[in-house]
Amino acid sequence: MTVGKRIFKLAEKLWPIHRSITGEGFRRSLELIKSEIPEIKIHKIKSGAKVFDWTIPQEWKVNDAWIETPTGERICEYRKNNLHVLGYSIGIKKKVKKAELIQHLHSIESMPEAIPYVTSYYKKNWGFCISDKEKKKLVDGEYSVYIDANHFDGFLNYGEILIPGKSKREIFLSTYLCHPSMANNELSGPCVTTFITKWLLKKKNNFSYRIIFIPETIGSIAYLSKNLSTMKKNIIAGFNITCIGDDRQYSIVLSRKENTLSDKVAQNVLNKIAKNYKIYSWRERGSDERQYCSPNVDLPVCTLMRTKFAEYPEYHSSFDTLNRVVNIKGLDGGFNFVKSCISMLESNIYPETNFLCEPQLSKRKLYPSISNLQTKQKVSLMMDLISYSDGRTSLLDMSKLFNTDYKLLLKLAKELERKGILKISF
Amino acid sequence: MTVGKRIFKLAEKLWPIHRSITGEGFRRSLELIKSEIPEIKIHKIKSGAKVFDWTIPQEWKVNDAWIETPTGERICEYRKNNLHVLGYSIGIKKKVKKAELIQHLHSIESMPEAIPYVTSYYKKNWGFCISDKEKKKLVDGEYSVYIDANHFDGFLNYGEILIPGKSKREIFLSTYLCHPSMANNELSGPCVTTFITKWLLKKKNNFSYRIIFIPETIGSIAYLSKNLSTMKKNIIAGFNITCIGDDRQYSIVLSRKENTLSDKVAQNVLNKIAKNYKIYSWRERGSDERQYCSPNVDLPVCTLMRTKFAEYPEYHSSFDTLNRVVNIKGLDGGFNFVKSCISMLESNIYPETNFLCEPQLSKRKLYPSISNLQTKQKVSLMMDLISYSDGRTSLLDMSKLFNTDYKLLLKLAKELERKGILKISF
Amino acid sequence: MTVGKRIFKLAEKLWPIHRSITGEGFRRSLELIKSEIPEIKIHKIKSGAKVFDWTIPQEWKVNDAWIETPTGERICEYRKNNLHVLGYSIGIKKKVKKAELIQHLHSIESMPEAIPYVTSYYKKNWGFCISDKEKKKLVDGEYSVYIDANHFDGFLNYGEILIPGKSKREIFLSTYLCHPSMANNELSGPCVTTFITKWLLKKKNNFSYRIIFIPETIGSIAYLSKNLSTMKKNIIAGFNITCIGDDRQYSIVLSRKENTLSDKVAQNVLNKIAKNYKIYSWRERGSDERQYCSPNVDLPVCTLMRTKFAEYPEYHSSFDTLNRVVNIKGLDGGFNFVKSCISMLESNIYPETNFLCEPQLSKRKLYPSISNLQTKQKVSLMMDLISYSDGRTSLLDMSKLFNTDYKLLLKLAKELERKGILKISF
Repeated sequence: MTVGKRIFKLAEKLWPIHRSITGEGFRRSLELIKSEIPEIKIHKIKSGAKVFDWTIPQEWKVNDAWIETPTGERICEYRKNNLHVLGYSIGIKKKVKKAELIQHLHSIESMPEAIPYVTSYYKKNWGFCISDKEKKKLVDGEYSVYIDANHFDGFLNYGEILIPGKSKREIFLSTYLCHPSMANNELSGPCVTTFITKWLLKKKNNFSYRIIFIPETIGSIAYLSKNLSTMKKNIIAGFNITCIGDDRQYSIVLSRKENTLSDKVAQNVLNKIAKNYKIYSWRERGSDERQYCSPNVDLPVCTLMRTKFAEYPEYHSSFDTLNRVVNIKGLDGGFNFVKSCISMLESNIYPETNFLCEPQLSKRKLYPSISNLQTKQKVSLMMDLISYSDGRTSLLDMSKLFNTDYKLLLKLAKELERKGILKISF
Repeated sequence: MTVGKRIFKLAEKLWPIHRSITGEGFRRSLELIKSEIPEIKIHKIKSGAKVFDWTIPQEWKVNDAWIETPTGERICEYRKNNLHVLGYSIGIKKKVKKAELIQHLHSIESMPEAIPYVTSYYKKNWGFCISDKEKKKLVDGEYSVYIDANHFDGFLNYGEILIPGKSKREIFLSTYLCHPSMANNELSGPCVTTFITKWLLKKKNNFSYRIIFIPETIGSIAYLSKNLSTMKKNIIAGFNITCIGDDRQYSIVLSRKENTLSDKVAQNVLNKIAKNYKIYSWRERGSDERQYCSPNVDLPVCTLMRTKFAEYPEYHSSFDTLNRVVNIKGLDGGFNFVKSCISMLESNIYPETNFLCEPQLSKRKLYPSISNLQTKQKVSLMMDLISYSDGRTSLLDMSKLFNTDYKLLLKLAKELERKGILKISF
Repeated sequence: MTVGKRIFKLAEKLWPIHRSITGEGFRRSLELIKSEIPEIKIHKIKSGAKVFDWTIPQEWKVNDAWIETPTGERICEYRKNNLHVLGYSIGIKKKVKKAELIQHLHSIESMPEAIPYVTSYYKKNWGFCISDKEKKKLVDGEYSVYIDANHFDGFLNYGEILIPGKSKREIFLSTYLCHPSMANNELSGPCVTTFITKWLLKKKNNFSYRIIFIPETIGSIAYLSKNLSTMKKNIIAGFNITCIGDDRQYSIVLSRKENTLSDKVAQNVLNKIAKNYKIYSWRERGSDERQYCSPNVDLPVCTLMRTKFAEYPEYHSSFDTLNRVVNIKGLDGGFNFVKSCISMLESNIYPETNFLCEPQLSKRKLYPSISNLQTKQKVSLMMDLISYSDGRTSLLDMSKLFNTDYKLLLKLAKELERKGILKISF
């Protein structure tokens, strides 16, 4: 079974849960991920706690919700699709005329069949999300609106796992899990990150890993408020992982500085694995990179995606589903993208030769006995690699300089290390 | 009355005066400017004084001059046009054959009707300037040439005004006033600078201003010889202002280093206000920027112009007149160009946020209640501005980075400062 | 007699000698060069000595060699062409079938008439080089192969001359002399370098010169192993000189860093003297620059050539002859290329003016009395030169900046130095 298939299965399990930035849905989702990765530690922060300029919100619980039309038909039933309730909506039970109701209905005119995903986290309001087609059928008259929802002091939760490596220097992975039943944005992110974590746990790593599963925005702000000084000291590269399960393209949102190690690695990987990819500038940001790269935080983090949020038609609607948007091929590619970035970081060595002048390769049997085009190219590449092994040029730099496959260079560097030609440091 | 019209009226008053680098004409012109700006202090330096490698020349006075043709006709009459006398010509009264006379006549073959402006400051000589058409009509025979002019020890004069601002750091403006009756080069420069000075005097400024009205070359050298150390300590940006009254185009001569704050500001302003402008390199210099940017002086000064000296056909001739070359529209544009550069310098703040992560805009009512394309763009720009407010990126840099109107950014930055989101420093 | 003709005559004298990286042929060639430059010192290093990662090889001596065909015909006769014997071949005397012989024959299919140049320095083997046409005519049967050659402990030799200049800082020239009878690669290199040395010996130089005549690869490694610390301390620029006698094009292999003074000078010179030239990157290297620019050696050395090794069809074959590839015009051009690079280095001054503001040129008679286009351009260039004379901008930089002939600038700088306007330092 491909990793994509296993990621897809995890997404299917998470699908029905009604998540928000806090509350039972988020906790149940975290528990499901913990059943895959028992090492994950689940943290909690009280409602009302101050995190930098922000305050941890109350929990929100929906029990039921619907609208009854003048003809007695029930529409916008929460139990049929949890997107029908405006995110963080207050409870309501009253009769309203069509004109008033319309003020509280959200739809997408350009996608008449889709229910949009809308939230009102920072302004108290009630509302329903509805397909535009259904909205247009509403007749005049009196409607019963019913939202059994309440807000109460509780906790914001997040999952965290720290995987120690040979070095204390860290690679940081962040993904968010706060959206209700939508597939690319966002079950793809936490599900791919879960399997990346499982992969990292099974192998020896040069770097340490800090991996978090958080609610978007408030979660990254809360996490930074507790860990910033350690993160600034240890993190050498990091990735925000989202919208990583469709198979249409690959993309990156660059960090604010646009030339951190993370930016370089991600671009180098895409250059190799993707035919069709897009590099978005910092000005096109929109996810947790906003916090990680803010002026006084300034971590070397960029965002890895397949098709970027807000750039595919099903984004933030009931059409962003498993199968329709996210598929096994897409998840396989997304997993491979993240894994390749990590692998490149894990092997981004700085080779250094101790020799003065070229080493004599023939006496070390590094010249092939059969000389053909392939072996000639290998010797030429080996000589190039040695000639740049001044301890200040990384394999990543050479890969760009030589326009050469990174893995081939890595293999050669390791061969030369074994032969005593090069020393390798990170 | 537009500022251009008032500048034009000042130019009309200055027009008839016969100026040179020293002497009565220069002094009378300075007095006329002082009647507009009483705060101007008029300085003098004695003839023969050493200023760096140069010597302050004697004063020059012309009382009358003409040529009498073999047929008894008077031509090249000084009283009809002061350009007829070679600048700094020695006195002469003698009869000469046509062949000898021709050696002392200056004309422009390509502009047969124009009298050229020619000087001989550093080589003793006599001469007349004449239209090529008139020159070609000269018959053989004996001519009487008469120049009643003399040189004597006196003074070189210049005007200076220092306007204190919040900071001791200075913006420097230099313009020259030594040419006789020509409009773009050069009455436009001192007249526009006069009204810029009046504007600066009426408002509170962040920076201090050092503004001088000098004769070209010898004046800037003399001024630098007296003020260099203070200028090097205080000046953060400066502009040489000349040829700024026609309405054909806008232009800059860059400083020798080509990337000083002055160069950046002038280019940014032109990018915004001008459809048709030209950036000249240091190698195309020709005015007082030559002194201000010379190797051991090296002040951050570039030259602001409408159409550059030597780049318009009427340059240095009797055709460079008010109305024909300089007009109200041109002066209005020139004034606006200089004013915009100063305004940009006055507001080229370095915003810095103290927040960690993004500030919560909603609780500060910085999110508009009505969301439309315009408000969305404003929020997006505000977020971009905050995201670059690291205290090292100036508003000028951001304006270039975002390709955004500078004033819009400034307004936003001030709004964010009032709300306590940003600190602003210069 | 042009220098090219004299260089050609020296090459003709060296032509018949059978050279290798060590041995009598190399010594006799060095002696011939010493007869041109008596100041050359000939050094020797014992076989078996360690030089960095390498070992000085034994000497190799060939007395005779041939193949006798089944029909009794002698082919591949060493006395007819010394290329027939595989370089460093062991001795052999036996009868072999055609099938076995073929394993030991080297030819070039694409050039059926040419005998290739092949060596086997680091793997013991015997062999002959033969034209492909002759090889194809070989009939079945028994062949007598005879190589009277032996290896024995002796010396590796090289020539060295140190020419002191005003400064201890050195310019380094390296050329190699180890190939048997081939003209462009390589008699052109040592012969041009011989005449460059003679030229340098006859004049006073600002810099000191270190010039060596070595066998390729092992020679540069051996020389570096004895002189590296002095070389690293003193050398400001250096050139490896090879393939410099044909008249097809000019070329450079850049140093690893690609922006050393040597790289800049060589490119600037070619930009001026050559219509048709090529700049090869470090990745296309192949000669002694490989050692001089290796990571821990890192000298500022690039390679100067006419047509680059391996880029002309006759390369490494019996077709690389005097007249066919190398000619007087080519040698003249090659000599001029090297000489121009040295001249530019010798005159790459850093002018500095002590004046504040522009110096007054008129009182120094630096303004021409006759003003025409040519004199105007000269004054303009003189003013530009002064305006950049900040002591940090070299004449080479200005030459690029002004897109101006270097020699014209040099002449002007010297004139201005005589007039006391500029100080000049190296």
